[in-house]
This record gives sequence, structure tokens and C-alpha cells, in this order.
Amino acid sequence: MEIKVLRNVLEANDAIAAENRRLLRGKGIHTLNLIASPGAGKTTLLERTIEALKDHLRMGVIEGDIAGSADAERIGRHGVPVVQINTGGDCHLNASMVRSALESLPLDGIELLFVENVGNLVCPAGFDIGEDAKVVILSVAEGDDKPQKYPLIFERASAMVLNKIDLLGMVDFDLDRARSAARATHPDLPIFELSARSGQGMEGWLDWIRSKVRRHENS
Amino acid sequence: MEIKVLRNVLEANDAIAAENRRLLRGKGIHTLNLIASPGAGKTTLLERTIEALKDHLRMGVIEGDIAGSADAERIGRHGVPVVQINTGGDCHLNASMVRSALESLPLDGIELLFVENVGNLVCPAGFDIGEDAKVVILSVAEGDDKPQKYPLIFERASAMVLNKIDLLGMVDFDLDRARSAARATHPDLPIFELSARSGQGMEGWLDWIRSKVRRHENS
Repeated sequence: MEIKVLRNVLEANDAIAAENRRLLRGKGIHTLNLIASPGAGKTTLLERTIEALKDHLRMGVIEGDIAGSADAERIGRHGVPVVQINTGGDCHLNASMVRSALESLPLDGIELLFVENVGNLVCPAGFDIGEDAKVVILSVAEGDDKPQKYPLIFERASAMVLNKIDLLGMVDFDLDRARSAARATHPDLPIFELSARSGQGMEGWLDWIRSKVRRHENS
Repeated sequence: MEIKVLRNVLEANDAIAAENRRLLRGKGIHTLNLIASPGAGKTTLLERTIEALKDHLRMGVIEGDIAGSADAERIGRHGVPVVQINTGGDCHLNASMVRSALESLPLDGIELLFVENVGNLVCPAGFDIGEDAKVVILSVAEGDDKPQKYPLIFERASAMVLNKIDLLGMVDFDLDRARSAARATHPDLPIFELSARSGQGMEGWLDWIRSKVRRHENS
């Protein structure tokens, strides 16, 4: 019975996600859904990415949190339009929350939309919000076993950012083990090893984004 | 409608949790439900705690994970009985999963039971499993804003472990800010600042556990 309820919820969500996707693609907006545990560095990555790309790309951000607007305030300082969603307890954004947020964004002036999901490595993986791609962010402080323990998001993500590599050597983290755990689930997953805090290794990630937005323009 | 379904699920869960609690207390077992994000160091804390207490207390462990049994294998090496629960996708343990696990543990030989919940700072906070107390573990690598962003678990926890203090100075983490954020939600929350990896600061945490088990014996 529980499964049936869940299925209905997911079907309703998928229908709205499809509408979001139609709307966003119709406006030529490429949308990335950023998913990670609390504290993996999603917001810092976003800040650093916006600074690097803002002279060439028009961006917008949707911030998802259970409570508060601290992240939206951080993003707002970088001069891009941002909307905060508070889920009020839910462990993930859903398509209907994102639809409401889209109404408050100046969509005609946006080419690249980031959605920072609620800090959670489990729930957001199961909910389509109408994005073009999911990106999973893992910090080396979390341990190299995480792709094994939380396989769904690594399976569904189109790219993986391995963040906080400035902490390698300070924590027990085996890069090879993390890479092979992720690729056991998702063989050709692009992995970008970087430190959003120090800026080290950002280029590969930025190139990947640029190529996605270009491909989107040409499609 | 969604709220109604959720309420039914929670009511059913609470009834089983109450049975678990009756069973565990009847056997004189004190039960701690450990809750944290992926990679906050729950398993390492557990390993270090078991090593420190195993000459004086008979312990058991229930490991909750979405998939795999790596954590149960780690714990098993320390010579305590352990059962692994795989939730198969669910972002938290529920009382019924714990009830099944209890059937596989030698309860008559256990005074202190640790339940390591699924790595998640959101979902496990809402589900009673029959524990005596919830303990929230936050790593300094996750950032000092987490109690503000995920208030429910800090409100419901009976103690907070601030782990990985060996990384202070390597990460942007303000101890005072974290403490006041946690205590804004939960004014008298005991906070134990330690590094499970280095062993630094473990004493306060161990004393707290010892006092709980003693109090339990006397009640």
C-alpha cells in the first residue's frame, strides 16, 4: 500500500517536472540540479562557479533548504537572480516547488539555471524537478565509500564533483577507491576533482558546464 | 491527502517504536540512535567508543544503510554483536526495521545498544525507533551553519557530538557560531567536541554515555 501511494506521488511529480522541462528548454535555459550531503560545499562551489562564468553566461539560481535563506543571501551577493525555496521539513525539492520558484525568476534573461537541492544524498535522487542534468557533489571529508553506500544518486548523476581536495592527506580518503566505487555504479561518469574553497581544479568543471550550455544552444 | 498518509505511517511507526522501547527497557538496555549526514564519522565514533567501553559495558550495534554491509563488518571486528539493516532506498530506519533487527541480537547480554541510522540529517529525525535518546553528530567539515539549516534533529537530540575537530583551522568553521546555532534550537544541549579519528576529546562523550547507562540501571 505504501508503495502505491509513493508511486502516485512520483507520477504527479513527474508530470509537473515534464512541464518545467518544456518551459525551461523552450526558453533555451540549461538546468543543473546540484545534489549533495549537508556541508559538501554546494553553495561555495556555486559561488566560485558564478564568479568564474558571470562575464560570459547569464545565470539564475534556485536555493532549496528546509529552513532559512542564508544560502540565497550568499548567492545574491554575486549579482545573479536567486529564489529561495523552504521545504518546511521535506528532505528534497519536488517539481511543484520548482515550478513556483520559476514564476519568480526573470527566465528570459537566463541561459544557465542552477538548482541547489536540500542537503541530502538520498531523497533528492528520486525526484525529477525538470532539470537537464543532476550533478552529485561529494567532499573528501565524507569518505571514499559514499558511492557504494548511496548508489542511486551516483547512478543518476551526469557528473560528479569531488570537492575539498585541499583536505586530502588530512582525512582518510583514497581517491582511487572513490573513483572506482563511483564508476562501478556509473561507468563513464565524469569526475571533477577540485577545491571550491581554494579554486584548485575548477577548470575541468567549468569546461564541462560551458560545453553543456553550448550543446543546449545548438540543439 | 499527502499529510494524512504521512500521519498514518507515523502513527503505525510510533506504535511499534513503543513496543521496541518496552522490550528494550524491560531488558535493561539503554539505546542510543546516532544520526548524522553521510561522512560525519558515525562509524569511526562508534568504533572508538566501543574500544573505550568494551571492558566495562556489554554493547550491541544495529547498522542502518541503504545498501551494503561495510559498516557492520567494521563494527564486527571489535567483537560486539552487530546486525545490518538495508533499507533498500529509504532515507531512514523505522521502528519495524529495528524490531526485526532486535530479533537477531542476543538482547540478554546487552546493556548498551547503538543504532547507527542511515546517513541523513533530515529523515531519521522524524522517526522514533524506540530509542532512549537521539545523538546528532556534526563534523566541522560540514560547516557551522548546519544547526540553523536542519533544526529538527538538533531540537530532538539529547546530545551533540562535534566531530573532526582535528580539521579545525583547515576548514571555515566557527566553533562559537556552531554552538550558539545549536543552542538557539536546543538551549541546554550537551555538546561534545572531539575527534574520533585522533581520540582527542573523547572523555566527555564517554562520561555522558556512562552516566546514561548508570541512570538507566537505577531507574
